[in-house]
Amino acid sequence: MEAYLDNSATTRCSRRAADIMLRVLTEDYGNPSSLHRLGMKAENEIKEAKKKIAKTLKAAEKEIIFTSGGTEANNLAVFGSVEANKRAGNHIITTAIEHASVLQPMQRLKELGYRVTCLPVDSDGVIRMDALEEALDGETILVSMMHVNNEIGTIEPIEAASELIRKKAPHALIHVDAIQSYGKLSVCPKRMGADLLSVSGHKIHAPKGVGFLYCRDKTKIKPIWYGGGQQSGMRPGTENVPAIAALGEAAAECTEHLAEKAGAMYALRDGFIREAVKIPGVTVNGPGGRNAAPHIVSVSVEGVRSEVLLHSLEEAGVYVSAGSACSSNKHAVSGTLTAIGLKRELLDSTVRFSFCAGTTEEETEYALRRMAEIIPFRRKFTRK
Amino acid sequence: MEAYLDNSATTRCSRRAADIMLRVLTEDYGNPSSLHRLGMKAENEIKEAKKKIAKTLKAAEKEIIFTSGGTEANNLAVFGSVEANKRAGNHIITTAIEHASVLQPMQRLKELGYRVTCLPVDSDGVIRMDALEEALDGETILVSMMHVNNEIGTIEPIEAASELIRKKAPHALIHVDAIQSYGKLSVCPKRMGADLLSVSGHKIHAPKGVGFLYCRDKTKIKPIWYGGGQQSGMRPGTENVPAIAALGEAAAECTEHLAEKAGAMYALRDGFIREAVKIPGVTVNGPGGRNAAPHIVSVSVEGVRSEVLLHSLEEAGVYVSAGSACSSNKHAVSGTLTAIGLKRELLDSTVRFSFCAGTTEEETEYALRRMAEIIPFRRKFTRK
Repeated sequence: MEAYLDNSATTRCSRRAADIMLRVLTEDYGNPSSLHRLGMKAENEIKEAKKKIAKTLKAAEKEIIFTSGGTEANNLAVFGSVEANKRAGNHIITTAIEHASVLQPMQRLKELGYRVTCLPVDSDGVIRMDALEEALDGETILVSMMHVNNEIGTIEPIEAASELIRKKAPHALIHVDAIQSYGKLSVCPKRMGADLLSVSGHKIHAPKGVGFLYCRDKTKIKPIWYGGGQQSGMRPGTENVPAIAALGEAAAECTEHLAEKAGAMYALRDGFIREAVKIPGVTVNGPGGRNAAPHIVSVSVEGVRSEVLLHSLEEAGVYVSAGSACSSNKHAVSGTLTAIGLKRELLDSTVRFSFCAGTTEEETEYALRRMAEIIPFRRKFTRK
Repeated sequence: MEAYLDNSATTRCSRRAADIMLRVLTEDYGNPSSLHRLGMKAENEIKEAKKKIAKTLKAAEKEIIFTSGGTEANNLAVFGSVEANKRAGNHIITTAIEHASVLQPMQRLKELGYRVTCLPVDSDGVIRMDALEEALDGETILVSMMHVNNEIGTIEPIEAASELIRKKAPHALIHVDAIQSYGKLSVCPKRMGADLLSVSGHKIHAPKGVGFLYCRDKTKIKPIWYGGGQQSGMRPGTENVPAIAALGEAAAECTEHLAEKAGAMYALRDGFIREAVKIPGVTVNGPGGRNAAPHIVSVSVEGVRSEVLLHSLEEAGVYVSAGSACSSNKHAVSGTLTAIGLKRELLDSTVRFSFCAGTTEEETEYALRRMAEIIPFRRKFTRK
């Protein structure tokens, strides 16, 4: 038996998305900038995808900018908004638990002379609102926060944060990295108060190499690269039509019956956690309940190194992550686990299980059974 | 009958490339940064693609950086090399006939205070070497030139230019936009003297949304965005594995028997030109012969507007471009046609036919027959 429980790293492309991808790739393959009918067909594929996505966000079609993925969407949001609004101030706020595709651009902005505040989080990974309130000032031009943390699943209080930001720094733009929440929880930029919001295709059963940035109408950003003027100049380059069409379909698919699917995933997750913590030495990180996303479980295992557990599970056909798997530096210590104050000896003894709507109880039960066997066995062989 | 003669705008994905794409998309869908076997499999797909591509360029695997396409590759080459070498000088050279994905970044660098020289070309679109010699100085940090012009097919004297550059500005990096030449002509960065060289997937029957930048070993560039450190930090973001695997296959496919295929395309093109110029009022732009690429024919038609001809051909099932189709501003006047000094009245009376290795004589003959019918008819109705 196999159980792919690494869906927050990447997902299998859905049949519906793959079918569209293949059709556009081999049949409707025109360049959307071409004036003839093959070009028009390609342009229509893009329009259709925008319509599907906009609907899921209760947004307008013109507010969607397609990118090559989540990393580019986050870079465009951060660099693009700062470049467009640098005359308004010099201060940027983010949090200690962001993904590298936000934190690294922030690091670069620091080198360029911007003042960057990195907000602390509590032991559940929730942004400290008192720290946010204190950090905001008239110089703040951007606040970038994630909706759901990719390592422990914490749902951040985005609406409350936005309200505070609008009050204390009305000119600041608000960017929400929704890469782990979109398709799992309801994501509505207007309700959340987001000016910018990033989504990645391959986390929602669309192909890799595509994503989008929601950019609220009239929000001023600058492109990060330049070319033939596609997408109103905000993101030039021939549009990745097959992947965009597939992304539109995957977006529609993953948001269909969202509440029911989320409910089922919560039940699956809660059952998994209930059994997991019965294994001696196992603890689960993050707030749990409805304060965390339904698909991520961060498990610390006393006395067993992450990689050892990961590979033992792999031998049993169970695929999980050590850390977040979104970094090519596979042995880096997790920023999130450090930020929530996880005991030092558990930092390198933590794995992430991540589900999707298609994950079955059979799979999670299988994973639990194998864990219950592996952990005591591996712990025996761990050097003290 | 249909004849798709717009292959320089975009190509149909080849069967071999599409098959690999679909397999990786739905089966080997792991995240290459994951430590388990699905991750390793994905990583191997990338390695395999790199190997195939490096072989076609007589380059090393580590010299290949995958991007989301040609526009990103050109932006990375231009911004990345200038940012990394700005302490060495302030002067950049490019040409009047580059693609927007080079010219627009140059425009941006000008705004940022760089001195940018835009070299003129002769009436065949060949870079003026005297102008290059004059422009080069100790401050020159980058020269960016295309190998084959996308609108009229001119092959640029890259090797001679590189020799001159090395002599007069030994610290300057040399970037070659090979997007229209790769897969049609032999492309060898070392022989050409290129430090950086861009290729786009969808021009060579790979999918859209993928391309690569060759970056000579030890050439110093900086990334244009930041994230999880993938591709040695030069181009972060989860790799677009299915498209990268397909690109590797398409690169191998399009360079197999390259000389024979190019020979056949030259014969096809020459036959096409021979017949086309017999139609009254038709002239062909560019140097022709072996000084131009085998797949691009720029045709000016006195007294018939480009769009009128394009749509009349489209009705007959023949797909061509007005201008280069790589710009979303579909009605912009062509920079290349202006730069070669094309008569004003022909600027808006020019269409581009572009072939691929699969284009048949039946298709080109059909296109010629329809042109011979359409042109006299349309000319009658043109307002004087």
